[in-house]
Amino acid sequence: MINELLYLDHAAATPLDARVLKVMQPYYTDQFFNPSSPYVLALTVRHDYEAAKQTIAQTIGAKGDELVMTAGATESINLAFNSIGGHVVTANIEHHAVLAAAKRYDHTIISSDEKGIVSADAVRLAIRADTRLVSIALANNELGTIQPLRDIATVIHDEREKRRQVGDTTPIYLHSDASQGAGQLDIHVSRLGVDLLTLNAGKVYGPKQVGLLWASSHVVLNAQIVGGGQERGLRSGTENVAGVVGFAKAMELADVHRKYESERLRTLRDELQQKLTTTFEDAVVSGSQKRRLPSHLHISFPGLDAERLIFALEMRGVMVATGSACAANKGTRSHVLTAINLPPEVADGSLRLTLGHLSTEETIAKAGAIIIEEIVRERERLTK
Amino acid sequence: MINELLYLDHAAATPLDARVLKVMQPYYTDQFFNPSSPYVLALTVRHDYEAAKQTIAQTIGAKGDELVMTAGATESINLAFNSIGGHVVTANIEHHAVLAAAKRYDHTIISSDEKGIVSADAVRLAIRADTRLVSIALANNELGTIQPLRDIATVIHDEREKRRQVGDTTPIYLHSDASQGAGQLDIHVSRLGVDLLTLNAGKVYGPKQVGLLWASSHVVLNAQIVGGGQERGLRSGTENVAGVVGFAKAMELADVHRKYESERLRTLRDELQQKLTTTFEDAVVSGSQKRRLPSHLHISFPGLDAERLIFALEMRGVMVATGSACAANKGTRSHVLTAINLPPEVADGSLRLTLGHLSTEETIAKAGAIIIEEIVRERERLTK
Repeated sequence: MINELLYLDHAAATPLDARVLKVMQPYYTDQFFNPSSPYVLALTVRHDYEAAKQTIAQTIGAKGDELVMTAGATESINLAFNSIGGHVVTANIEHHAVLAAAKRYDHTIISSDEKGIVSADAVRLAIRADTRLVSIALANNELGTIQPLRDIATVIHDEREKRRQVGDTTPIYLHSDASQGAGQLDIHVSRLGVDLLTLNAGKVYGPKQVGLLWASSHVVLNAQIVGGGQERGLRSGTENVAGVVGFAKAMELADVHRKYESERLRTLRDELQQKLTTTFEDAVVSGSQKRRLPSHLHISFPGLDAERLIFALEMRGVMVATGSACAANKGTRSHVLTAINLPPEVADGSLRLTLGHLSTEETIAKAGAIIIEEIVRERERLTK
Repeated sequence: MINELLYLDHAAATPLDARVLKVMQPYYTDQFFNPSSPYVLALTVRHDYEAAKQTIAQTIGAKGDELVMTAGATESINLAFNSIGGHVVTANIEHHAVLAAAKRYDHTIISSDEKGIVSADAVRLAIRADTRLVSIALANNELGTIQPLRDIATVIHDEREKRRQVGDTTPIYLHSDASQGAGQLDIHVSRLGVDLLTLNAGKVYGPKQVGLLWASSHVVLNAQIVGGGQERGLRSGTENVAGVVGFAKAMELADVHRKYESERLRTLRDELQQKLTTTFEDAVVSGSQKRRLPSHLHISFPGLDAERLIFALEMRGVMVATGSACAANKGTRSHVLTAINLPPEVADGSLRLTLGHLSTEETIAKAGAIIIEEIVRERERLTK
């Protein structure tokens, strides 16, 4: 049933992979024990939990005990900011979770360019003597644009070196929310050059409200949620064993299939883009097309009302987004589209089409045809 | 399989009720949508999520929009403390989550009596002019003792009235973690007289890492985790739809079966207690026997090493706890037993036996017989 959905909103939510659900189930029933209980059946659960963390860690080139498991990416981001504090630098196209967390501290919000890319130079210029944290997502959730994290890491490294030379011990760290990149991009932490990394199971066909913060061993974290001392005292609460075991399976699958899946999605996405842009010559594709996730197509049809279009598409079974899902229920224009200076009449006619496991040659061809028909119909209505 | 377990540790973790798992599953697969997405299938998920909150709210006599869903009780407790702050009052037998949260603020920790009861008078004496929060669990997780919340609420009410009369606008609220009482006690918030209430799905045959903070409409909460603005801006992050729907089913079942289940557990527990105390005349049952959860039996066998006993019992399939599960892996003496002045040689021979769904006439009779045999064997070993 689910496989027949014309679902083009994978950036908002992904269905749980059947293999993920399968590994989760025993921890709801037969293996329900509290991992902190003293008997062997509970110790086995503890062992499975730690092994799951280790599996996840391996997919990012880290160690299991460097992970703090959280209830999703938002909590992970909040924990990162809460831990480092000081003056923080982030960009105006970041997810609301990052922007809201940054606003609790002395902050500088740098501007993305019109392609939705945050330049390393902009980061360099924003860093002050008291900057402790720079937070830039690996890939933007609306546009899919991939940020030059490696270059930004070099900027951080240079600043660290500069401080070291003058005997300034103020630390500076690079945090990245890689929730949207996982499953498509290389997310090895050392190759990304980050000090802290956020991941979200719900974006990679794992369960919702399961995420993590990875921090390099030289970063001192500061717990937001205190209590029984779980997660090395950095995040208390009885562990979500089923969720974390599911997350591990999801990350394992994402890692194994990453290259194949990226190519598959890129081909499908490019075909869809081609079809839409050749049919509608005034269509505007936003965000760098060179540095973009294979899953994402952000496309605007000037003069159209995207909200009307979404309803029309839905009547025909096609599910798409306008802004990011988090902001979707607020009826306001996406802050990302404002940030890249998309004119209002273009922004208001924007669709975010995001591909994933449910995208096949067949569903994308069908969805593409319906999108075209509905846009034609809507334009005819407007010119009457 | 699970039904044959000789599991006497329900206070640490409960198996997911099969009916709970059944209602959760669709939200992992067919209904995986982000509740903030704009199309009808997602709006249906949003509707189901809000309906689940409403169901939970009804079991505590509250409204759905007064609940903030959290990743378990620990986060809920932290949110309560973070929201109210000021001088806080709590007791020395509280869960680590409450004690750790309290220690972040100016705090007074009052003493429980030797029966594990926190008196309203002790609370009254601890309240200062700047006290804003009193946090006392409905039932203690180790002893099962039920606190006189109604009387404590009267103390808070009197203090509030006193302040009002002198024009002092400093608020004072009563928070209670009712995680251990749910399913056995009446937890209607108005009858309890609380302003804030914490609940945990994982203790009532629902999923782990799902909980809530209820706050009366006159309490202003302060978000710890910020971002997309979910839960009325009080706790951001894509909603755990499956978890909350499961929590609702678990609370519904707990509510419907509460009276029957309490009586059933009380009968089984009393039989077990009778058997153990008549066999071992020096056995010490801790905590008020008049004000105690039907599920709990905290019993000590002076001179025995409970940790050795736990291993011996486990070899025969009986699963029990020493201290609380959270503290169990730390190898330290329970702070609750220290608080009630249990002499070390008694405390070190303590078992916490907690009954629940997996307890039947048969399993309790079997477990009781094995516990007796193993204590006899251990005592014989010690007298050789």
